[in-house]
Amino acid sequence: MHNENHLKSSDTIRDIVIGMSDGLTVPFALAAGLSGAINSSTIVVTAGIAEIVAGSIAMGLGGFLAGKTEADHYSSELQREYEEVERVPEQEKTEVMEVFADFGLSPTLQRQVADEMAKDKDKWVDFMMRYELGLEKPEANRATQSAITIGFSYIVGGIIPLSPYFFISNSQMALYYSCGITLICLFVFGYFKSKVTGQNPVNGALKVVVIGALAAAAAFLVARQITG
Amino acid sequence: MHNENHLKSSDTIRDIVIGMSDGLTVPFALAAGLSGAINSSTIVVTAGIAEIVAGSIAMGLGGFLAGKTEADHYSSELQREYEEVERVPEQEKTEVMEVFADFGLSPTLQRQVADEMAKDKDKWVDFMMRYELGLEKPEANRATQSAITIGFSYIVGGIIPLSPYFFISNSQMALYYSCGITLICLFVFGYFKSKVTGQNPVNGALKVVVIGALAAAAAFLVARQITG
Repeated sequence: MHNENHLKSSDTIRDIVIGMSDGLTVPFALAAGLSGAINSSTIVVTAGIAEIVAGSIAMGLGGFLAGKTEADHYSSELQREYEEVERVPEQEKTEVMEVFADFGLSPTLQRQVADEMAKDKDKWVDFMMRYELGLEKPEANRATQSAITIGFSYIVGGIIPLSPYFFISNSQMALYYSCGITLICLFVFGYFKSKVTGQNPVNGALKVVVIGALAAAAAFLVARQITG
Repeated sequence: MHNENHLKSSDTIRDIVIGMSDGLTVPFALAAGLSGAINSSTIVVTAGIAEIVAGSIAMGLGGFLAGKTEADHYSSELQREYEEVERVPEQEKTEVMEVFADFGLSPTLQRQVADEMAKDKDKWVDFMMRYELGLEKPEANRATQSAITIGFSYIVGGIIPLSPYFFISNSQMALYYSCGITLICLFVFGYFKSKVTGQNPVNGALKVVVIGALAAAAAFLVARQITG
């Protein structure tokens, strides 16, 4: 089989992308918004770090629980399918046949396939899980690893737009540097993200930059409105 | 076929859950963190609204682009499969056979299935898309709808923890009300979310509350550390 499946295996890269794209965007926009309203880098840094802490925990734990839920859901459905092939084997065979009816196989062939598959219960249940229910077996420890990767990527992403505010006490001035650094990083990040996911890299990079810039501009304008 | 597939159809509910769980958690934790560091509800409100604007745009547009990418990826792979069944039909038949070899069908039956499926090109390609590549045809307009639902749910979720700061100028006092209201809402939200996704509702609700409380406590402590 030629290698068409590479996208699905890169779960870690997907987690880095999830964490870092939000990490680069939201703290950046928050800092921009505050700079438009309050001229104090201390407040921007405090809010920015509070946001990074909150966001990385929420996203990381969110990723952990999503992974856990997926694993729990898989085991409970797996158990249910094993019970059903014991309890109502003919009904489950009909379900196998229905899958193949959708692909234009003749009833005779559907029946042959269902009968032959029913000889090995494990493979039969595996087929039902994947092709009737659309569930893939989740990797062990996926949830924990996913949580750490997403949370850490969010922190790394979030520190970048915030860094100028550490060194420049005038937050309006720091904002210029933050915009410059962050838009460059968003472009680079978007470029590699698109390469990995098989999109056009420059198009993909521009999309990521536009999201970041729009979010920051909107936050800036709204925050200025409130205080102004 | 009995109704085992209900989870997959509820894409809108999934989008509401994605938007609202982050919306309730991150602005809540940010407001808590700032209240621990700076005694001014105006700054908390400004930062909170800037965060909600930034977060809803980042998540909404993020959801939009993810949906778009999925749709683009589907069409490009679809075109590729149509080309391949024309260009290398025998190789594609072998791939169909390999799918069935994994489920314990005999080589004779594998060959019969592959030959019969190859008679209808649309169904053959549909099979390859779903069962070799694991790709489902994305709904039309899914991306736009997803963006709006996620973004709007984030705003609704985010307004809740922020609301006490609108009315109470002492941010430490507002924090108590914010914690009370938000933890109740997180519980209610977690309860219904778990019901919809088939988990134990009380367990699920407690998990959601713990994430929110942990994120807020961590943001509070870190922000106080910086300023203190």
